[in-house]
Amino acid sequence: MHPIPTIKDVALAAGVSIGTASKALNGQGQLRDETRRRVRAVAEELGYQPNDLAQSLHRKRTFMVGLISTDNYGRFSMPLLEGIEHALGTAELSVFLCNAADDSERERRHVASLLSKRVDGIIVTANRTDPRPPLDLLGSRVPVLYALARVPDDSALCLVPDDAQGARLAAEHLVGLGRRRIAHVTGPRDYEVVGLRQEAVREVLVAAGLAFPERRVLSGPWRATWGRAAAERLLSTDPDIDAVFCGSDEIALGLTGALRERGVRVPDDIAVVGFDNWEIIAEATVPPLTSVDMRLRDLGHEAATALLGLIDGERRQGVHRLPCDLVVRASSGAAGGAS
Amino acid sequence: MHPIPTIKDVALAAGVSIGTASKALNGQGQLRDETRRRVRAVAEELGYQPNDLAQSLHRKRTFMVGLISTDNYGRFSMPLLEGIEHALGTAELSVFLCNAADDSERERRHVASLLSKRVDGIIVTANRTDPRPPLDLLGSRVPVLYALARVPDDSALCLVPDDAQGARLAAEHLVGLGRRRIAHVTGPRDYEVVGLRQEAVREVLVAAGLAFPERRVLSGPWRATWGRAAAERLLSTDPDIDAVFCGSDEIALGLTGALRERGVRVPDDIAVVGFDNWEIIAEATVPPLTSVDMRLRDLGHEAATALLGLIDGERRQGVHRLPCDLVVRASSGAAGGAS
Repeated sequence: MHPIPTIKDVALAAGVSIGTASKALNGQGQLRDETRRRVRAVAEELGYQPNDLAQSLHRKRTFMVGLISTDNYGRFSMPLLEGIEHALGTAELSVFLCNAADDSERERRHVASLLSKRVDGIIVTANRTDPRPPLDLLGSRVPVLYALARVPDDSALCLVPDDAQGARLAAEHLVGLGRRRIAHVTGPRDYEVVGLRQEAVREVLVAAGLAFPERRVLSGPWRATWGRAAAERLLSTDPDIDAVFCGSDEIALGLTGALRERGVRVPDDIAVVGFDNWEIIAEATVPPLTSVDMRLRDLGHEAATALLGLIDGERRQGVHRLPCDLVVRASSGAAGGAS
Repeated sequence: MHPIPTIKDVALAAGVSIGTASKALNGQGQLRDETRRRVRAVAEELGYQPNDLAQSLHRKRTFMVGLISTDNYGRFSMPLLEGIEHALGTAELSVFLCNAADDSERERRHVASLLSKRVDGIIVTANRTDPRPPLDLLGSRVPVLYALARVPDDSALCLVPDDAQGARLAAEHLVGLGRRRIAHVTGPRDYEVVGLRQEAVREVLVAAGLAFPERRVLSGPWRATWGRAAAERLLSTDPDIDAVFCGSDEIALGLTGALRERGVRVPDDIAVVGFDNWEIIAEATVPPLTSVDMRLRDLGHEAATALLGLIDGERRQGVHRLPCDLVVRASSGAAGGAS
């Protein structure tokens, strides 16, 4: 397929990512000497022209990427952007930030503007991972990648967090702490992630021989006020629950506050876990919130590296789900209180 | 001074901003017909070449601005960016976002990269308005403007929120509601805004014949956990206070939560006002938080318009402080309870 070895071949043979291979060959970025030496040895062995990628970039003088975002607040797009910037040296990559604000006409104008500037690639990001229409490239064939966004087009490359795996981490954590009656206070049902996470929680609880009745899944807006309302509802209809997994840190903040005002001890009586690991919210919660982290910086890093691959002629497609982490704080307790 | 009338002359004569004048003459953006007609009539009267600015932009084919930010989280830079984008039509302005992350070497590389792309101007933004070193332009004379950032250089143009005026709004609001014993829980003393706001509160209280003893100014980190700690301290050392003006919404969120857990009614016993009007936090507070809004979108709009002026050859300099708003919600109460 590749008569001339690409940077991907070098990366594969050296057992490193494309970004690392690129850094090693460009002599930029922070790498261990040992890694740099290994990559260079492999490149020589394969007959890779060490400056292929760098030269193709330098020929154009600028390596520019457009980031089209529909996330007004920047809560999700900013960590992504940090990851993108870190994937390569700052000088090698410049990012045009375009705020499309969920307005397709505005998005179209951004694409036209990016194409007129001859960007090398476009990353599309959103604040939800439900399918969105593919970006209208106005006839161009510039490489496009979707990060924290997804399109119903099998030939597109989409990187999203693995919400089901993240929810499993949360549920397994609570079960491991001895919690038995676990509720899930989540977002609106029309979000795909709401279904994915709920199903993952169900699988964990069933595998542990625990019940997960319908009444323990409460769906509402992604907001603190909904967390408060859900706490009231749970305490009146299902007062013997011993843990709540919340679909967002904002929901968890509201829920935890309402529980404490009713005299419920967190985590002793009820353990709480959030989702997003939004540090400002997690640390404002009392006690500080255990939360699932979507590792958006890593996702941005991976997106930039993958886009480089596409620009370099690779063909990658499909929806790739990247693993989440669980960050444990005091709201879930170290040992658990109920049984 | 200007033998040939500039767009600024047109804007002045028509009584509109430069951005509005630009929109009216370009036939873009949303404007009332009446405004558009008035601007065009004035332009004709002055002998303004209607397409001067637009042509100078079109001649370059791209109008690109670099936004260098040290605000990792994007909480402050994103609304600014929205304002910048709204100041002109999307197609006319493209923003390179550069995250300098408070790293001067990284900033220098961003500047070099922006200059190599021949940007038309640079906006520098930060997450605090204390003086920072002037941007090193590497010998270039590209127009630069500081927004929500300030440099110790009298020839620089800096746009910042009017923190003192914002604090006055908060204090006058509380005094107007009949509050008499007002505390101020604020951020670290090494932030210039902390001193500016404290002094403004003092002036309002003194003018109203109220005391503002040292013990009622509590300084700590800009965080919810500090708000909680400050609430405990106030309740034990100064339990008869009837209002607290907080230096950030995060502080107010923590303080309000701690007050409620101690059985204090907000706003009946103690009214609370925050600063930032960060909607997610203001609405997560119980009851929802009255807060000072720095109008960052307007500041971004003004910054883009002013940068256009600099590009167009205007000479503006100095520190300009733009007014804040107060957004009243339930935490301060409509009528006040104490006297």
